[in-house]
Amino acid sequence: MLRDRLVEALGSDAVKTAPEDLAVYAFDAYTDGGLPSAVVLPSSTRDVSAIVKIARDCGEPIVARGAGTGLCGGAVPLAGGIVISFARMNRVLDLDERNRRARVQPGLINLALSREVANLGLFYAPDPSSQLISTIGGNIATNAGGPHCLSYGTTINHVLGLEIVDAAGDVFETSIDVAGYDLTAAFVGSEGTLGIVTSAWVRLMALPESVRVWVAAFDDIDSASEAVSAIIAAGILPTALEMMDVVITRAVEAAFHAGYPTDAAAVLLIENAGFDEDVEASESAIHTIAVAHGARSWRSARTKGERDALWAGRKSAAGATGRIAPNYYTQDVCVPRSRLPQALRAVGEAAHENGITVGNVFHAGDGNLHPLLMYDKRDRKQVAAVIETGNQILQCAIDLGGTISGEHGIGWEKRDAMTRVYSTADLAVMARVRDVFDPMRMLNPEKIFPAGARCPEVAPP
Amino acid sequence: MLRDRLVEALGSDAVKTAPEDLAVYAFDAYTDGGLPSAVVLPSSTRDVSAIVKIARDCGEPIVARGAGTGLCGGAVPLAGGIVISFARMNRVLDLDERNRRARVQPGLINLALSREVANLGLFYAPDPSSQLISTIGGNIATNAGGPHCLSYGTTINHVLGLEIVDAAGDVFETSIDVAGYDLTAAFVGSEGTLGIVTSAWVRLMALPESVRVWVAAFDDIDSASEAVSAIIAAGILPTALEMMDVVITRAVEAAFHAGYPTDAAAVLLIENAGFDEDVEASESAIHTIAVAHGARSWRSARTKGERDALWAGRKSAAGATGRIAPNYYTQDVCVPRSRLPQALRAVGEAAHENGITVGNVFHAGDGNLHPLLMYDKRDRKQVAAVIETGNQILQCAIDLGGTISGEHGIGWEKRDAMTRVYSTADLAVMARVRDVFDPMRMLNPEKIFPAGARCPEVAPP
Repeated sequence: MLRDRLVEALGSDAVKTAPEDLAVYAFDAYTDGGLPSAVVLPSSTRDVSAIVKIARDCGEPIVARGAGTGLCGGAVPLAGGIVISFARMNRVLDLDERNRRARVQPGLINLALSREVANLGLFYAPDPSSQLISTIGGNIATNAGGPHCLSYGTTINHVLGLEIVDAAGDVFETSIDVAGYDLTAAFVGSEGTLGIVTSAWVRLMALPESVRVWVAAFDDIDSASEAVSAIIAAGILPTALEMMDVVITRAVEAAFHAGYPTDAAAVLLIENAGFDEDVEASESAIHTIAVAHGARSWRSARTKGERDALWAGRKSAAGATGRIAPNYYTQDVCVPRSRLPQALRAVGEAAHENGITVGNVFHAGDGNLHPLLMYDKRDRKQVAAVIETGNQILQCAIDLGGTISGEHGIGWEKRDAMTRVYSTADLAVMARVRDVFDPMRMLNPEKIFPAGARCPEVAPP
Repeated sequence: MLRDRLVEALGSDAVKTAPEDLAVYAFDAYTDGGLPSAVVLPSSTRDVSAIVKIARDCGEPIVARGAGTGLCGGAVPLAGGIVISFARMNRVLDLDERNRRARVQPGLINLALSREVANLGLFYAPDPSSQLISTIGGNIATNAGGPHCLSYGTTINHVLGLEIVDAAGDVFETSIDVAGYDLTAAFVGSEGTLGIVTSAWVRLMALPESVRVWVAAFDDIDSASEAVSAIIAAGILPTALEMMDVVITRAVEAAFHAGYPTDAAAVLLIENAGFDEDVEASESAIHTIAVAHGARSWRSARTKGERDALWAGRKSAAGATGRIAPNYYTQDVCVPRSRLPQALRAVGEAAHENGITVGNVFHAGDGNLHPLLMYDKRDRKQVAAVIETGNQILQCAIDLGGTISGEHGIGWEKRDAMTRVYSTADLAVMARVRDVFDPMRMLNPEKIFPAGARCPEVAPP
């Protein structure tokens, strides 16, 4: 029945129900998942609208999916339902060079947009490490960040308007127009629970005249953290300010020979971009601060090749840990920048206590930690230890005045932790907004909101 | 009954019902208004909550009011109701210097915040020309801009979280936390129709090391407009990029002797701020572009006194037109920067056709026009001509791909124009969100949404 109706609306080529096809959509980058009832690959907004109406008739929940790189299970089905893959809606629909904006489909790969507009001297700024494969639609769903969000802002700062299909299959648009309510921000980061984005106007930025990348090595994490705070306190906002500990630099160097020192407790990867004179002026200022905070080496990448190698190493750091353990779990929490030293100590203690190897590679300028917990999925004890460590890290971030997600959303994994950062009243307000757009809770129903909520307004129906 | 209950809850000192008191709250900076049933001056969130509950019981609508500087009638009552004045909730509640943020009450005057944190080397960036008197709460209600929003963004970019009292009198909080829905943006710019902001966490920025201000004079508006586009196309984003026509520069010079040339068709006021070297480098780049586009004079303000005089003149431009006519009406529309010459021609034609004197002083870098239409309120024909001119300017902005508000909201004045920029489906979505927070439509009920809407979801109940 479901399959027949989907095939009738979209053609058999766009509907997958064979077990081997469904299995491919059972997981994202989180450890848990489930098989969908069907996977559909729409080619247009009209297709999406038709799918939603069929799902409604058949009582099937819907999970929208980009590249499946999300860390929190936001894109996985849990008990049947329809997965909408946007693999075929991956084009740039409009390119408005003069006003520096583009209208794109949700399945467009993040880096593909920057590549497409590079010859115009433009780029799309949000750059999650997954940008080689993750999609703009998925980035919108989680309000994705990336190293350069320190100065350019996260996805929300680059979305100008959305076309959305709601849970009734109706299409509407939001824009960041001053006239009327700004609902765009409510949809960005809502992980497919309020509606399905079928196209987005995004902001493009001018490629900077000059880019410089520097690497500073420190003998301890505290000194590196203090250098980070001092750089920003001095009024300098580099385009990126990343930290890696020795576990990560060694893994990266072993895998990629990117050019990082492997004998330092902490390494800062610092980038600045802009006009040549400005970037040059910032180099000496940043260098002085780094040395004053104990940097024992300083290196300036001289060529584009050196810069690219350093960035490729940074963005592939998670993959590089494959040499240490067969699996890794990435936690994603934020703390105020000034609490970084305490947060990193707490991460180390939690990992040690649970017998887990941890590597830290993260957006230091934003206070956004990404502890990589290394383990073997085949060992149940290790799985339990990793989950416990992740949980302790969440609590430590909250205790330090931070929050439970920096850029990867809440999804399935962290929904019960929402009660630790929001009051029931605040969650109930969010749930009331959800009910406006999805009164039947058919859009990604098991996500974001806590499962065990006592408040009837928050709990699933 | 209403008065008795309000006095019982807040004390007689906080409740005004004498005709001479009510008259003071009948108008804002728009031409239309009406008398409230009562004016209350709460001192706390608890007071606001009590007022809302009493209003609900008594079936009275509520209009929240800051300083009453809004241009579109957003803060005026129309048919009775309670005006909540935030004059007594005007304090900085928390100052978090290290993380550069402050929690403030809605009645705090915009400039008072910057003055309070200046000794820490910080400031609050959004700077509407009304900043000497307008309040942070009113700025949030309209998502206020200002000259420096070109580089710093509008109010929404500086609000980190809100405490809100909803139409049931319940209190909740929003934050721009990545976890959960970002509802802050929906409240910023909602003009008191979704809830009443009782406190706000706002971002503070570091005062720049160096500030420079330049004045470039042009023989025609087109050349000045093209210079504006060229500066930004070159990848330079000055902190402010304002234009004034000769009507305005002459009025300003007659009133304030601010230092503007009075013989040029168009004058650009350009500011850049940052590190000394960067600002110096930008001066020569901007100067070169201005000259290439026909600037016939260029002046650099050498002292802080000269800079302040130029800015004071710019920010008092509307008042200066009092020498030309007893009243002025400010229109507020946006067009793509590339359409500025056409937009200004259309403004001139509309004014000429209706026999109205117009002066242009506006945020050129943002494409945000502010034609000042000068008239005598005592002459009914002139009032009608001004309204017609304003209306034609709205339509011209829409025709050029722009929109009906830049930074002053929709309020009462522009609500019927909403149907010209939004489809019924898009307006219905906004109305559904409104119904979540204010199902009885008791919060500023006659604002934003069109009066004559045919769609039952959009029309008032």
